[in-house]
Amino acid sequence: MEKLFVIKIGGNVLDHPDALDRFLDDFAAVPGHRILIHGGGKIATRLGDQLGIESRYVDGRRITDDATIDLVTMVYGGLVNKQLVAALQARGCNAMGLTGADGNVIAAHKRPVKTIDYGWVGDVDNVNGHFLRALLEAGLAPVMAPLTHDGQGHILNTNADTIASNLAVALSATYQVRLMYCFEKKGVLEDLHREDSVIPLINREIHARLLAEGRLADGIIPKIDNAFAAIDAGVREVLIGDASELTRNVTDKVSGTLIVS
Amino acid sequence: MEKLFVIKIGGNVLDHPDALDRFLDDFAAVPGHRILIHGGGKIATRLGDQLGIESRYVDGRRITDDATIDLVTMVYGGLVNKQLVAALQARGCNAMGLTGADGNVIAAHKRPVKTIDYGWVGDVDNVNGHFLRALLEAGLAPVMAPLTHDGQGHILNTNADTIASNLAVALSATYQVRLMYCFEKKGVLEDLHREDSVIPLINREIHARLLAEGRLADGIIPKIDNAFAAIDAGVREVLIGDASELTRNVTDKVSGTLIVS
Repeated sequence: MEKLFVIKIGGNVLDHPDALDRFLDDFAAVPGHRILIHGGGKIATRLGDQLGIESRYVDGRRITDDATIDLVTMVYGGLVNKQLVAALQARGCNAMGLTGADGNVIAAHKRPVKTIDYGWVGDVDNVNGHFLRALLEAGLAPVMAPLTHDGQGHILNTNADTIASNLAVALSATYQVRLMYCFEKKGVLEDLHREDSVIPLINREIHARLLAEGRLADGIIPKIDNAFAAIDAGVREVLIGDASELTRNVTDKVSGTLIVS
Repeated sequence: MEKLFVIKIGGNVLDHPDALDRFLDDFAAVPGHRILIHGGGKIATRLGDQLGIESRYVDGRRITDDATIDLVTMVYGGLVNKQLVAALQARGCNAMGLTGADGNVIAAHKRPVKTIDYGWVGDVDNVNGHFLRALLEAGLAPVMAPLTHDGQGHILNTNADTIASNLAVALSATYQVRLMYCFEKKGVLEDLHREDSVIPLINREIHARLLAEGRLADGIIPKIDNAFAAIDAGVREVLIGDASELTRNVTDKVSGTLIVS
């Protein structure tokens, strides 16, 4: 099977033009198939402030009312997505911007209201792997905004990490998928105060030992759980690493943390 | 050759939810291949007003400074495009939103400054017909925002009528193309004061006679000239008609004005 890199970048990269330029240089140079998933929350928050649309969060998730879904559709699906696509085209990378509505790539449903009404937030039902494969085989690099649709005409706001994981799983029958979460740390750290304490490899055995010894920070535990869930669903490996180390992290000698079965 | 309908809708349709719903019902039911090109200028102007971005025009063309290109990228490429795509998906039409940057569909260059600096406005250099054909043959309905790119990382604002004409010409080697301009009038009128005075067919002979007799309104003359230019470049026919008459206007018995060689 051919390799596929499913690469999610965090908001910090989008907010730093120099870091973004370097990341896009590296992304354009990734050999073979790749998909980029982006956020844009900070840009949406700034524009929302200008428009008098209040940004509200519960457990880190944006409450998406009518004004907010229009806001994020503009910012994620329009401004950020098209700027990334144009910037990649300038680097000779044939990028193709997508939301989940385009080509019915990601069908979702509006999250049911239990204790919290998240508004126009979508939980993923189905990924159109057939269409994504056709784009990849045509040499295109899909650039995915964190938006899905409900099949009834509504755009839904969906967490970018979740979209990355769902795409990776859906394509794992056809490709050897490395799912990559790029953020501003070098990887999973043994000691949060030492940037050079990256754990290079986590498998189930190491994971159990790290947990038993209480050596994983609270914030990283759900990320690693999600990584193992993706691996259980067919993804070959998950990398957590620094956006500035993309070129190294698509090789076998990673600088971040590689999570494997 | 198979038929292809390249359909441009004006801003008025976008501004009237009921009319838009009906238009989208009809578009989803168009038999065979079709492409939708939309604007969104009024929505951009309203959002620009909220953001303190002044809308300035010369000869009906928007002056596109740095703030304005971001504004129209959000509104055309994000809000309007994705709402149309989601609405078509809800009608069983597998729509695919595009700007010229996506898949390098439309390469353009920034209009050189002569007497007027239009800013980030693009004139079309090349249409990637190969990619559009692949989408059409896969059963997708491209939905095109009036944005192009310069291959150097910049999104450019490009007139939607011009984009429609360029797409129609580029695809005329493969398809029998009917290029359709849908607006709020029934067609080209013999008498501007009589809505029922639609001229059903204009060919070169009729065109010459109408011009000689001074029976064409000033506003419509350049539209008809552009129609003949598209026909000279390979487009089979151009229809000017009412957005509410789409279902009839894709047949042989049109209610609008059909312009032929």
